Amino acid sequence: MAMYSPQPVESACYPRGFRAAGVTCGIKASGRPDLAMIVSETRCEAAAMFTQNRFAAAPVVVSRRHGRNGARAIIASSGNANACTGEQGERDALAMCEAAGRAIGAPAEEVFVCSTGVIGVPLPMDKIEAGIPRVAAALSPTGWESAADAICTTDAFRKMAGRRFEVGGKDVRLIGMAKGAGMIHPNMATMFCFLATDAAVESGCLPTVLRPAVRDSFNSISVDGDTSTNDTVILLANGAAGNAAIRRGSAEAAVFENAVRDICIELARMMVRDGEGATKLVTLRITGARSDDEARQVARSLANSILVKMAFLGEDPNWGRIAAALGNAGVELDPRQCSVGFDGMRVLDRGTLTGADRGALAAAMKKPEFSVEVDLGTGGSGAAIFWTCDISDAYVSFNAHYTT
Amino acid sequence: MAMYSPQPVESACYPRGFRAAGVTCGIKASGRPDLAMIVSETRCEAAAMFTQNRFAAAPVVVSRRHGRNGARAIIASSGNANACTGEQGERDALAMCEAAGRAIGAPAEEVFVCSTGVIGVPLPMDKIEAGIPRVAAALSPTGWESAADAICTTDAFRKMAGRRFEVGGKDVRLIGMAKGAGMIHPNMATMFCFLATDAAVESGCLPTVLRPAVRDSFNSISVDGDTSTNDTVILLANGAAGNAAIRRGSAEAAVFENAVRDICIELARMMVRDGEGATKLVTLRITGARSDDEARQVARSLANSILVKMAFLGEDPNWGRIAAALGNAGVELDPRQCSVGFDGMRVLDRGTLTGADRGALAAAMKKPEFSVEVDLGTGGSGAAIFWTCDISDAYVSFNAHYTT
Repeated sequence: MAMYSPQPVESACYPRGFRAAGVTCGIKASGRPDLAMIVSETRCEAAAMFTQNRFAAAPVVVSRRHGRNGARAIIASSGNANACTGEQGERDALAMCEAAGRAIGAPAEEVFVCSTGVIGVPLPMDKIEAGIPRVAAALSPTGWESAADAICTTDAFRKMAGRRFEVGGKDVRLIGMAKGAGMIHPNMATMFCFLATDAAVESGCLPTVLRPAVRDSFNSISVDGDTSTNDTVILLANGAAGNAAIRRGSAEAAVFENAVRDICIELARMMVRDGEGATKLVTLRITGARSDDEARQVARSLANSILVKMAFLGEDPNWGRIAAALGNAGVELDPRQCSVGFDGMRVLDRGTLTGADRGALAAAMKKPEFSVEVDLGTGGSGAAIFWTCDISDAYVSFNAHYTT
Repeated sequence: MAMYSPQPVESACYPRGFRAAGVTCGIKASGRPDLAMIVSETRCEAAAMFTQNRFAAAPVVVSRRHGRNGARAIIASSGNANACTGEQGERDALAMCEAAGRAIGAPAEEVFVCSTGVIGVPLPMDKIEAGIPRVAAALSPTGWESAADAICTTDAFRKMAGRRFEVGGKDVRLIGMAKGAGMIHPNMATMFCFLATDAAVESGCLPTVLRPAVRDSFNSISVDGDTSTNDTVILLANGAAGNAAIRRGSAEAAVFENAVRDICIELARMMVRDGEGATKLVTLRITGARSDDEARQVARSLANSILVKMAFLGEDPNWGRIAAALGNAGVELDPRQCSVGFDGMRVLDRGTLTGADRGALAAAMKKPEFSVEVDLGTGGSGAAIFWTCDISDAYVSFNAHYTT
């Protein structure tokens, strides 16, 4: 899957009133781009979601306080996570917001800051503070790709997605960029997603749109079950499309929410594809749960089971491992009601083996993408879709021998 | 660690009034021993603990109902787990108890049954029913090693431990045997532990002894976080030592409990050592938690983190991964109060990096056994000890390419 390369995003999706750029400021020894900035000409409505990890990194601590009354910009660096860096780390994260704010004439509280890379090492602030005016000077309405490149760490490819849709007869544009290979990176263990739209959105509406989209995308993927200290998703909406502001709970909000969810799912799937050395992108389809939450809990148990991942790598339709992971999901279930299938071929039907053709099952699992279906048979209609991948020999080599 | 071989158990630890044996009945294609039996001359007090997996296998379903009013025997087969085998599986498990009971003149309800091996395939009952009279005929007071061999599947070595201790001036003997390599085996994913003692124990005392011993041993190890459908721990006490029956909560019960815990920990550590391809046995020492349960929860998060395991394999003192796993443990903690050490060398002291010598840290991690210490600094005195291992390239090869 390392050869996978997503389609570029059409520039017609670039939202109006935003500029973006990425430059090399010298954090990465490799000389690759490591400082990105996204700026709106006007103050945006903003919603952000952050890692649940208790060891939240300094930029997360600072960003959580920012954007409460709107935001103008995101400043993001790669190569150093500014995590586990104590009070100095928080001062540095704030200094990045201040420098970015100065460069565009905005208060620091209107700037979100994100960093990804090695943990426990102070940021090279001299390089970053010299870089911020440069990245600000490089800002351009078409600079999205260079920004997307500058947030990558070990990503094998750039991750972007875009949509155009209509709201109240107005053309609305939405772009998203992401980094991360499913939270699997050792010291660069982070996912970011930055979304920018020119939709006009009423205050309070954005979080209600972002939350379910993140639940169904970035919170529905797993590579190795670890959650980074820096994970951040930010959605900015500047209103340049000129539509009547989208109201919470309206039909327009539903259209907007679907577009945001679509982009998030597209980016999340790219992350799973990018799991170092992963050879399989597996879609888990859970049905028949008492609730969607219960279905997600079951999906997570399957997605994180090392033995299930090993079966994916081995192209082995080993439903016994699926059953064992189901039984460990912490959900009340009756094995006699459970059904399991691989790529649409049912191997277990309400607790009874179907005698499905082993050859056909194995053939399905030889594909780079396939699905696993589980029906819990509780009588409920709770369902979830989740994406996961295998753990390969290459993953082990990379992650064991990666040095701090 | 494949070369590791535990000391044999002195026959002086063999409990009186018990006989054991293992034979080949033909479940395993390899022709290796696959049917074990442990029998007491008299009815024993019995305590048993079983997998929490909702897909509990048929022998677990049957054994849960047995031994309520004492037990005479354990019949255990290896090579086929009798798991996910539906009602036929339960009939077969019960038939094993009946056949074993007939062979020794005991009702089926006084026989525990255990099976381990492939999932989803009916037991070859003709072979097993022919084998049970043979294993019963082979029973001997010194047959423990042959029984221990016959419960192995992919185990690299036999797992036994024994103790002698005094209770009320009487010589008491306790023996334990186990199988399993930390629940990591694909279709043979099971741990068993059978404990037999000649101590006299009052009714109701045994479960109170077994529960904390299992908590501190088999529930304090992790190889890959998966729990099998067949996990079973059984403790039989036949009173042949002639001591005054040990009463729940007495000083004698504490002596007995310590012996049971010791043996369980010894066997549990053998399982972690036996994790296929594992190269490191790592002891996690968690202190400063609000409660022991909280400390265990933190230990489990560390023990199951794939990235932490990869760091162990890579001999990398990567405390950032430890911190990330701590932050994901689901426990309320303050990073500024947390301390982390490797083999006694503190790298993080109440949230501040100590600048510990990287060379010394790496040297510690090159050893086949080392420890990781975490102090949560909550002000509480909750603590836990947990054992885990790395995931190696060999583990991946074995588990991915193991075929049903």
